[in-house]
Amino acid sequence: MEYGFEKMIILGIDPGIATVGWGVVKYEKGAFRYIDCGTVTTPSGMRVEKRLFLIHLALSDIIKRFTPDEISIEELFFNNNQKTAINVAQARGTILFTAEEHGIPLFEYTPLQVKQAMVGYGRAEKKQVMEMTRVFLHLDSVPKPDDAADALALAICHGHTRSSKIRGLNTLKYSKKTGGN
Amino acid sequence: MEYGFEKMIILGIDPGIATVGWGVVKYEKGAFRYIDCGTVTTPSGMRVEKRLFLIHLALSDIIKRFTPDEISIEELFFNNNQKTAINVAQARGTILFTAEEHGIPLFEYTPLQVKQAMVGYGRAEKKQVMEMTRVFLHLDSVPKPDDAADALALAICHGHTRSSKIRGLNTLKYSKKTGGN
Repeated sequence: MEYGFEKMIILGIDPGIATVGWGVVKYEKGAFRYIDCGTVTTPSGMRVEKRLFLIHLALSDIIKRFTPDEISIEELFFNNNQKTAINVAQARGTILFTAEEHGIPLFEYTPLQVKQAMVGYGRAEKKQVMEMTRVFLHLDSVPKPDDAADALALAICHGHTRSSKIRGLNTLKYSKKTGGN
Repeated sequence: MEYGFEKMIILGIDPGIATVGWGVVKYEKGAFRYIDCGTVTTPSGMRVEKRLFLIHLALSDIIKRFTPDEISIEELFFNNNQKTAINVAQARGTILFTAEEHGIPLFEYTPLQVKQAMVGYGRAEKKQVMEMTRVFLHLDSVPKPDDAADALALAICHGHTRSSKIRGLNTLKYSKKTGGN
């Protein structure tokens, strides 16, 4: 028996203003296949609205090329550098808008959730997440640069979480049937 | 003698995720004329990417209707509510992108600069800024709601600042000529 959700293209996105990481994987019957990954970079000397426009253009192009079924993006938390934080949030807003413009469902994950899904516990080191990304995608080495690898991890995290969510739903349905009233 | 910059349509924008204020003024030979103002509101229960999409749609519509020459938008500072701050920055990113998509030059002002331009000193009260907005636009009462009035103040602030900047440039040119060497 095959479900629609068992075969899908997932685009992972690691948001940023200077560098946006992206990674595309195919998820089929519980296994992942690497498709492509990379980064979108914008010059720091450029006005922010132009940088946002470039991010929109590049992301629209990626969406058209790979036609992802779903997008997985990192949730945002603020650090100590306020100016960078504002720009990253502004870039992330443009990314969310672009996904919605193309009608692609969005899913958000915290770094903790990614670590949990990839390594099995939330306090895993970045290096372990990278290594698991390599293993899940059957690659000889960890994809470069780091932002692209982070995006691939987000895509894998979504595949895992999605399938366990759907399994969860099925379980719920069965127990309802059993439980009655 | 008439300069191109002495006659222009300015769109002021007070960014937000729940409410975006907007106001359009015509600036001609040092005087302002009120054209229109309002707000774009998005429901709090809606997913953020859909709210961003609505903001983009509404703003694109406003730009098409009033064909502003320039846009004046409030600069962003972060307050204590991190979640709201992220969403406002995400909305502001979508607004900046939309302005750039339509090729309209953007100018950013801090609340301090707006107060300075409207009332003459940076510690002016909001009420005084509102009253000066009414006076500059020759209106019988302060426009409602507050977000729309704030957007009109941003538009007026830009008209003032722009003309004094250009006067400054002329002065610079003349003094260069005078200075010689």
